[in-house]
Amino acid sequence: MPATSLDQIISLCKRRGFIFPGSEIYGGLQGTYDYGPLGVELKNNLKRLWWKHNVYERDDMEGIETALLTNRYVLRYSGHERGFTDPLIDNKTTKKRYRFDHLLKEQTPETLDAIAASFGIERNPDMDIFVDALLTDPTKAQTALKAAKVVDAADGKPGDWTEPRTFNLMFKTQVGPVADDENFAYLRPETAQGMFVNFKNVLDSTNRKLPFGIAQQGKSFRNEITPRNFIFRVRELEQMEIEYFVKPENAPQLHEEWIQDHIDWWVNVVGLDREKIQLFEHVKLAHYSSRTVDILYNFPTLGFDELEGIANRGDFDLGSHSRANDTLGLTSAVAPNEHSVEKLTYFDHETNKHIVPFVIEPAAGVDRGVLAALCEAYDEEVVNAEKGDIRVVLRLKPALAPIKVAVLPLAKNKPEIVAKAKAIKKDLQNQLGMRVVYDDTAAIGRLYRRQDEAGTPFCITVDYDTLGQSKDGGTELLDTVTVRDRDTMAQERIAIADLLGYLRARLV
Amino acid sequence: MPATSLDQIISLCKRRGFIFPGSEIYGGLQGTYDYGPLGVELKNNLKRLWWKHNVYERDDMEGIETALLTNRYVLRYSGHERGFTDPLIDNKTTKKRYRFDHLLKEQTPETLDAIAASFGIERNPDMDIFVDALLTDPTKAQTALKAAKVVDAADGKPGDWTEPRTFNLMFKTQVGPVADDENFAYLRPETAQGMFVNFKNVLDSTNRKLPFGIAQQGKSFRNEITPRNFIFRVRELEQMEIEYFVKPENAPQLHEEWIQDHIDWWVNVVGLDREKIQLFEHVKLAHYSSRTVDILYNFPTLGFDELEGIANRGDFDLGSHSRANDTLGLTSAVAPNEHSVEKLTYFDHETNKHIVPFVIEPAAGVDRGVLAALCEAYDEEVVNAEKGDIRVVLRLKPALAPIKVAVLPLAKNKPEIVAKAKAIKKDLQNQLGMRVVYDDTAAIGRLYRRQDEAGTPFCITVDYDTLGQSKDGGTELLDTVTVRDRDTMAQERIAIADLLGYLRARLV
Repeated sequence: MPATSLDQIISLCKRRGFIFPGSEIYGGLQGTYDYGPLGVELKNNLKRLWWKHNVYERDDMEGIETALLTNRYVLRYSGHERGFTDPLIDNKTTKKRYRFDHLLKEQTPETLDAIAASFGIERNPDMDIFVDALLTDPTKAQTALKAAKVVDAADGKPGDWTEPRTFNLMFKTQVGPVADDENFAYLRPETAQGMFVNFKNVLDSTNRKLPFGIAQQGKSFRNEITPRNFIFRVRELEQMEIEYFVKPENAPQLHEEWIQDHIDWWVNVVGLDREKIQLFEHVKLAHYSSRTVDILYNFPTLGFDELEGIANRGDFDLGSHSRANDTLGLTSAVAPNEHSVEKLTYFDHETNKHIVPFVIEPAAGVDRGVLAALCEAYDEEVVNAEKGDIRVVLRLKPALAPIKVAVLPLAKNKPEIVAKAKAIKKDLQNQLGMRVVYDDTAAIGRLYRRQDEAGTPFCITVDYDTLGQSKDGGTELLDTVTVRDRDTMAQERIAIADLLGYLRARLV
Repeated sequence: MPATSLDQIISLCKRRGFIFPGSEIYGGLQGTYDYGPLGVELKNNLKRLWWKHNVYERDDMEGIETALLTNRYVLRYSGHERGFTDPLIDNKTTKKRYRFDHLLKEQTPETLDAIAASFGIERNPDMDIFVDALLTDPTKAQTALKAAKVVDAADGKPGDWTEPRTFNLMFKTQVGPVADDENFAYLRPETAQGMFVNFKNVLDSTNRKLPFGIAQQGKSFRNEITPRNFIFRVRELEQMEIEYFVKPENAPQLHEEWIQDHIDWWVNVVGLDREKIQLFEHVKLAHYSSRTVDILYNFPTLGFDELEGIANRGDFDLGSHSRANDTLGLTSAVAPNEHSVEKLTYFDHETNKHIVPFVIEPAAGVDRGVLAALCEAYDEEVVNAEKGDIRVVLRLKPALAPIKVAVLPLAKNKPEIVAKAKAIKKDLQNQLGMRVVYDDTAAIGRLYRRQDEAGTPFCITVDYDTLGQSKDGGTELLDTVTVRDRDTMAQERIAIADLLGYLRARLV
């Protein structure tokens, strides 16, 4: 049975060491998580598969990794200083604070209609557009909420609501020993800007021609008002983003290709069920974007929510970060840039003109990808209904599995068996270059179940037969081992000499 | 000829896309750097090799990855809130600010002796101890500096020095929408604390027995007073650290083993010259440490400086982060902990006692490792003295090389050659799973030299012979290519069918 609730996943993550709350022994730090021994391998595998697909296997991509501490002007001209905000509202009775749109989503359609009526507008079914309308007059919105008796889930009663207001989500920090208003930097809210401001650096050092892309993975920070839903909405997140630079006339077609390519990646490489994936076409678009499509996954508890957004951002970003950008013939409306020292343009040898490329931005969440992979893989399988024997098994794609192979001794008090098992672990480790473990901390049945929960595709057991000491006195099983398949629990007898080939063929 | 100056490395890094200054188009952000297309591959390779050696190839190690945003109490009880400081001093004439110890290191021995005399003490040859003595009386230190005529390199004259004072190097940021003194977190100044505070989580989810370790790679942040020397002293750095937990009586021996193991790793895996490595035994030790040894590398311009520190930290860290730590029988002096909810102890089944393990901490800098690898690999080779033909070649270990193989078409206007080269690139990419590139943006000689600068071990050239269209009309070279060795520039003719085996054998 698949996971029906996020709590099952959270419980497994804590118990088996995938993910722990951040700073846990000091009561945590809301919106931060630590990846444990299994989690860090799963996350790194996901990142590596993404990098392989998007950087290595293409001929038009360069990877980079830029600093998290970011000059304030990068985020000024990107538009984040002004626009990277969430709407916020407080209930004076319960002292609870909510993201305004999240609060409204929990209300009944009747309540929302009442707010619209009291505000004097038609209610737009797109919540973002509806919220924007309400924010145009916070005082009137406050009155409308009270009149419509908007309920606070904390006490189940209509709240005494403040005016809704906007809150900038960027973290700041003072840089250098002098504390004043000038000496601060932002923690980047997305990896994207590091790629835009390095456009020239990459172009100059690689001789790329359009279309080409820059890819990056790394941490970003968002001071979420109410972090929630485990690693889905956090204050410290990890992203994997691409900025794919194209000639303007090719943007719509290439945008569509990226959407299809990345749906296929989530399905074929990460193993998500295509039936659990939906697309969401943004109705409310940033002024510079001609089209934005989100790839949604059907998470337990959460329902369909965003894994990745893929936007056609036009020439807004490169244009915004360019000096003298009023001379570039941009199609996007950008603010004059008084601080950049570069024009982020591309010289098109075919037309002998400097152009500002359009950009297609596929931007995915690493943590959300990890969560989706875990939710998809989670299975509670009834092994024996009469005995109430249920096993938890993570049916992860082998390429994602934190541990590829576990080598287990049937008897830990038999030195030859232990020595043989450790030798096999070491050999496989060296040959495969992937995570192979040795474990003798429990009886074999228990060890199998532990590896099932960890998603380990193969368990190898070294026993008396391996030593040529079969019970029947035969030696034909000398130098063979049992290989147990995680998904079927079937066991095969394989010669040690054939193990590497057997595993290589199945671990791709 | 090897690099004689860091400037040669910095220039190569910028030109070829290894490393760029952070936020460069806005004038930079001091102490931050962006890794470009080649740099990110080099860095990731270094990290992967470290992880393979320290996590995968051992049977006693778990990896984790903890949040950068850290609850303030973690850094209070670790001792960082009080003690993670650098001494700071200003020259009122030049308005220049210095790290006090850095300023003193630039003075003559006579000047330093004069300061000591004027301060009324013997000068300790260990600068850290000398500085600590001066900081005990900042007013007296100020007078001593003026009397000794301590020179400011900025104007070459004796400065009008302020009193030296200490400055905390941790970055803070406000978390959540309410700005007050309580709602802040630190950006972690080291990865180590994330491992200590997760000690119980790792233990409970993995059944580990002593000795075992926890390894982590990731960003850390230090608000350096004067970041300098390229990526050597930065405000945003990356670390690779191990906390290896041991029974107290085994600590000295295991400490020594880690030192030797990691020297060997830097030499055998990263390829550093053993002659350029020195050990530095700390004389001034933290009160809880019984021994700390630094592994130094002889960088051009900088001389011998730290790559990695390996400390025996006793039971200070686990003890400090434990509640009721006065009951644990610690050997280290720790502050009472009023905020932790855990006792970070280990139950020893052999003695049936809860003990607080000692910890050995090998802590290396990723960026410094990258810099050392680049410095070691850099070579300006005279190819033809008469013609003044000098090539820059990065003699990186193949496992570190950003690009493993470059596939180059001899003629980019010959479609069959281009198609063949692209097909070979794709095949090798898929089979090797490493970075293989196709490049046709220059003539072949130029492309070779570009790959030399990038450190690419092998170039494969597809030519007319490959197509069976040799000049002499022969077809015996059909389906063969030229493989050029980076270090020797020697070229071999290899059948396409044999390429994979040829490369695999040489890319380990």
